[in-house]
Amino acid sequence: MEIRTTTITLATRGFNDIRDLTPHLTQRVREGSVLVFVGGATAGVTTIEFESGVVSDLKQAIERLAPHDIPYAHDARWGDGNGFAHVRAALVHADLEIPVAEGRLLLGTWQQVVLCDFDNRPRERQVICQLRGTFARPEDA
Amino acid sequence: MEIRTTTITLATRGFNDIRDLTPHLTQRVREGSVLVFVGGATAGVTTIEFESGVVSDLKQAIERLAPHDIPYAHDARWGDGNGFAHVRAALVHADLEIPVAEGRLLLGTWQQVVLCDFDNRPRERQVICQLRGTFARPEDA
Amino acid sequence: MEIRTTTITLATRGFNDIRDLTPHLTQRVREGSVLVFVGGATAGVTTIEFESGVVSDLKQAIERLAPHDIPYAHDARWGDGNGFAHVRAALVHADLEIPVAEGRLLLGTWQQVVLCDFDNRPRERQVICQLRGTFARPEDA
Repeated sequence: MEIRTTTITLATRGFNDIRDLTPHLTQRVREGSVLVFVGGATAGVTTIEFESGVVSDLKQAIERLAPHDIPYAHDARWGDGNGFAHVRAALVHADLEIPVAEGRLLLGTWQQVVLCDFDNRPRERQVICQLRGTFARPEDA
Repeated sequence: MEIRTTTITLATRGFNDIRDLTPHLTQRVREGSVLVFVGGATAGVTTIEFESGVVSDLKQAIERLAPHDIPYAHDARWGDGNGFAHVRAALVHADLEIPVAEGRLLLGTWQQVVLCDFDNRPRERQVICQLRGTFARPEDA
Repeated sequence: MEIRTTTITLATRGFNDIRDLTPHLTQRVREGSVLVFVGGATAGVTTIEFESGVVSDLKQAIERLAPHDIPYAHDARWGDGNGFAHVRAALVHADLEIPVAEGRLLLGTWQQVVLCDFDNRPRERQVICQLRGTFARPEDA
């Protein structure tokens, strides 16, 4: 068992910017898992079929969950204007773990890992990608 | 530390079919955790008290979250008719991890692990159950 | 790789009592992760910026998600009066995993780990905190 912690850096636009992380998840683990975690209180991680229809549908559902145009106590107190982003992030969760076996992420055929940036401005996001398990070759550990 | 990746196969009916996975989670880990993950973009995993009242209440909440009878861009584009299922799955999450100690899943007394199949048709679901930790007997590793 | 399973005990008030767990998460792991899990079907764990504005905003979003004043089948069947709490817990999730590297939880600057107690009465909550990875000093393992 080895652990390797890496960081994916992504420039995002905010306002429900949903981005496919799957190509960034290195797959050198033979058996184990990958933990994906976004540090920050205005973004989340989940899985979807990453096609423009579902992306659009998920954005609308998130807007229903925490509308951008209702009052937020966070904004009243701090003037950040991103109260909706905080609520959305809490409900979507910052963490996701995907099992790996035989060197393959055990995602479904049409299932991708996505970062959802809910903030109200562009951000440079650091997404943690922690590989845990046995590695294919010693030099990958 | 050992890792063992197994698959639970379940025939589901879709349309918010909520199924108790707890009896399927083998408990041979002594200390560690069990990662439950559903491969596929139209199902999710969480915990509930698995009794018919809560099952019915959760179905209704999920219907409010992503109603079946509103337009979905996924359906307009692909004609699948399961746009609601994609959104529900993204919000419920595909992964759940349960700690184990002294050979016991550390669930509450009234807390079960459930698969929620949101798709609009029966499916044969593959749920990944990855055991990680120390095992009770060497032959269980 | 070592695993250490500990329990945080917290007296909570219920009714969306949101409590900062971050100070309780011991940080003796050098590289690995911390799994936070609440045993019980009426509480959840997530991350937020723990300030009174966001806490209030999240409570309101959770109230929209599963209002306290609509009928629940769980209550009709069992008379517990906490049907809303069961639904909220299922949607927020009982588990959260935070990566650790160089002895530090990889949370964002303004991101805390919180317990959300949704029940309709005060509780003494047991929150599992499982440390996994390499430890800073042998005696911490």
